[in-house]
Amino acid sequence: MKTQTLKGFRDFLPKEAKKRQWLINTLISVFESYGFEPLETPALEYAQLLKGKYGEEEKLIYEFETKGKDKVALRYDQTVPLSRVITQYAPRGDAGQNGLVFPFKRYQIQNVWRGENPQKGRYREFIQCDADIIGSSSPLADAEILKLVLDIYKTLGLSVTIKINDRENFKDLDKKYVSAIDKLEKIGESEVLLEMIDKGMAEGDARKALLDLQKKPQTEKIKKILLALNQMGAAMNKIIYEPTLARGLDYYTGIIFETIAKDSPSSLCSGGRWDRLIGQFSGKDMPAVGFGLGFDRTIECLLENNLLPSQESPSKVLVTIFNKDLKDKSLEIYLKLRNSNVNCEIYLDENAPFPKQLKYANKKGISYVLIIGPNEAKENKVTVKNLKTGGQKQISLEEIKDSISFP
Amino acid sequence: MKTQTLKGFRDFLPKEAKKRQWLINTLISVFESYGFEPLETPALEYAQLLKGKYGEEEKLIYEFETKGKDKVALRYDQTVPLSRVITQYAPRGDAGQNGLVFPFKRYQIQNVWRGENPQKGRYREFIQCDADIIGSSSPLADAEILKLVLDIYKTLGLSVTIKINDRENFKDLDKKYVSAIDKLEKIGESEVLLEMIDKGMAEGDARKALLDLQKKPQTEKIKKILLALNQMGAAMNKIIYEPTLARGLDYYTGIIFETIAKDSPSSLCSGGRWDRLIGQFSGKDMPAVGFGLGFDRTIECLLENNLLPSQESPSKVLVTIFNKDLKDKSLEIYLKLRNSNVNCEIYLDENAPFPKQLKYANKKGISYVLIIGPNEAKENKVTVKNLKTGGQKQISLEEIKDSISFP
Repeated sequence: MKTQTLKGFRDFLPKEAKKRQWLINTLISVFESYGFEPLETPALEYAQLLKGKYGEEEKLIYEFETKGKDKVALRYDQTVPLSRVITQYAPRGDAGQNGLVFPFKRYQIQNVWRGENPQKGRYREFIQCDADIIGSSSPLADAEILKLVLDIYKTLGLSVTIKINDRENFKDLDKKYVSAIDKLEKIGESEVLLEMIDKGMAEGDARKALLDLQKKPQTEKIKKILLALNQMGAAMNKIIYEPTLARGLDYYTGIIFETIAKDSPSSLCSGGRWDRLIGQFSGKDMPAVGFGLGFDRTIECLLENNLLPSQESPSKVLVTIFNKDLKDKSLEIYLKLRNSNVNCEIYLDENAPFPKQLKYANKKGISYVLIIGPNEAKENKVTVKNLKTGGQKQISLEEIKDSISFP
Repeated sequence: MKTQTLKGFRDFLPKEAKKRQWLINTLISVFESYGFEPLETPALEYAQLLKGKYGEEEKLIYEFETKGKDKVALRYDQTVPLSRVITQYAPRGDAGQNGLVFPFKRYQIQNVWRGENPQKGRYREFIQCDADIIGSSSPLADAEILKLVLDIYKTLGLSVTIKINDRENFKDLDKKYVSAIDKLEKIGESEVLLEMIDKGMAEGDARKALLDLQKKPQTEKIKKILLALNQMGAAMNKIIYEPTLARGLDYYTGIIFETIAKDSPSSLCSGGRWDRLIGQFSGKDMPAVGFGLGFDRTIECLLENNLLPSQESPSKVLVTIFNKDLKDKSLEIYLKLRNSNVNCEIYLDENAPFPKQLKYANKKGISYVLIIGPNEAKENKVTVKNLKTGGQKQISLEEIKDSISFP
């Protein structure tokens, strides 16, 4: 029997699962401080819904036919399901019966599946973490999205800069040249020029187009957004205007941005304005701006910078069982602790030797171990061992709550 | 284009998503107070892993072949993946390199997918919430599992009783008769007798078997578990010994239990001891006891009993924008609030009429609305409207943090 995970798929054992849960909770707390609310959509959608939305990448979609003959596909991103939700519950952009309130500020943190070639840092199942504002074309909305990104990484303690541009800057350039310019940072100027020439532009024109682009001043839209962002208290030195930033995705219609951590070449969190995608579903365009945060990349970056707090054991105290005869005594102490709302455990085997119980506490990162041996039992005492410091002391049963400050 | 969810699948819009998140967080806090730790497994597994594990229900598994020719299946439950994890990382039941600590106490709260016929309260995608202890055959482990269930529903404020039995009581009965007796509560004694007779037992024998069963005293194992449970401080009047309780699943080997709320016929949370399933994967049996909690059923039951706390808006204050010219003034106030760590929003459209902004706050359940009109701006004041009470007052900018106690 194959008792292995599929290639590109991962188990998260407790230590890692707790770190990820910590990051999710931190993200949620920042989202909520801005009034963003959660949305969840199904793992499976009609395959038809996802078709024609992701360009060449469409081939990475997991799709199949169910026994009931439905053609279905696994969630590939969260933007298409969001567009479906808007269309299904609020086709005219009003609140409707279903409680969507506009501007609709939603976050969504769910898994997506892509049949990528697995490689370092690339998985076939991974969490996406999106935040979007639907229904406002005001620069205030763009600014709030940028402020949210800055606040998230500030809260995480990670120093980042946001590169920002306006798609407007490319309005006179054919799409194929934009996709060449998009690689500027990766492959350098000469390679980009070669690609532009290769795609049909005369060398002189290509040079001029690139130079013109690099000199383009901030658009009026960007100026307005940055003004609002400044008024919202953002650290403006973290924002870099980058007129050659292109971003691959076709659906952006206004600002686009990437978030770069020091010493990290790739973007942690990218987004922009996408005013014309929802219209493809509902027939009526609706302004939208937001981002997708790379969960795995952010975790890795936090790890590299020692910024992931070590996840303590949820239980603070292990009550050990000295032997079968003294089990009742241990249960008595355990009950006392639980009645005092101390997160604690009793070792779940009355026949286990003490070293095994101690190892359990150590491995799990439990801070305190209580020992009730024959002497302690006779004198109505308990020995408290602090596994962090190694120190231990005897206390009376009455003191158990008062004299140990379980952190 | 089909802009609908698939039959049996659900979107969770913010109001519902928040309620569900609240329940998940509550469950996690109880799990963690007992030292249970999270585990996550992939949505897709090799189909082979799931085959032959679920009896007749196997036909409900979502399975397909990927473009890479892997035969895969969507997670159907969390017990088989858990058994795979134990086999993969700790085949001999020791901690190994991977940080599994035994007894391994894990909770798992993930979606599963089953191609059920959708009907009221039955979905094709739903959350399962499992807790299990792997590696202890002590009655202390069984008792802890029961205590955990009692604590969960106590924390939720839901009055429940747990029916408990020991599979041992059926040791002299053929499986086919047990499955008949399993329906006793649903179809009544005479129907059960008919089914037993139908399945081959003589009428007298069937009557005697049923009567004998109903009179069976608690097994030694149950006595030990209930003694430990009592010592752990459980409300023992919530536990009912029920010698005819059978539970469908074949894999139980010791105690079995169901959790029943008042006025609710079906079990909210069921489980038992399953000491011989992991051996099917690893070749070495490992003791295990735990439960699966019905998430949707528990939500429904909380709703019916008005026990789901209303989920407030994450933002407490909406700063409105009186008009375009006064936008900067509103941004100034907004910044003041954010700098004081108040969860707040500014309305993201400087051209929206005031009633629309007020409606936004009302619909979202935001408690306070701030208004900065021309008079307020001139006098450096702000009008605070309490949407819960309807009252409003003017305060100075300096008072904004001190005099309003944003809850």
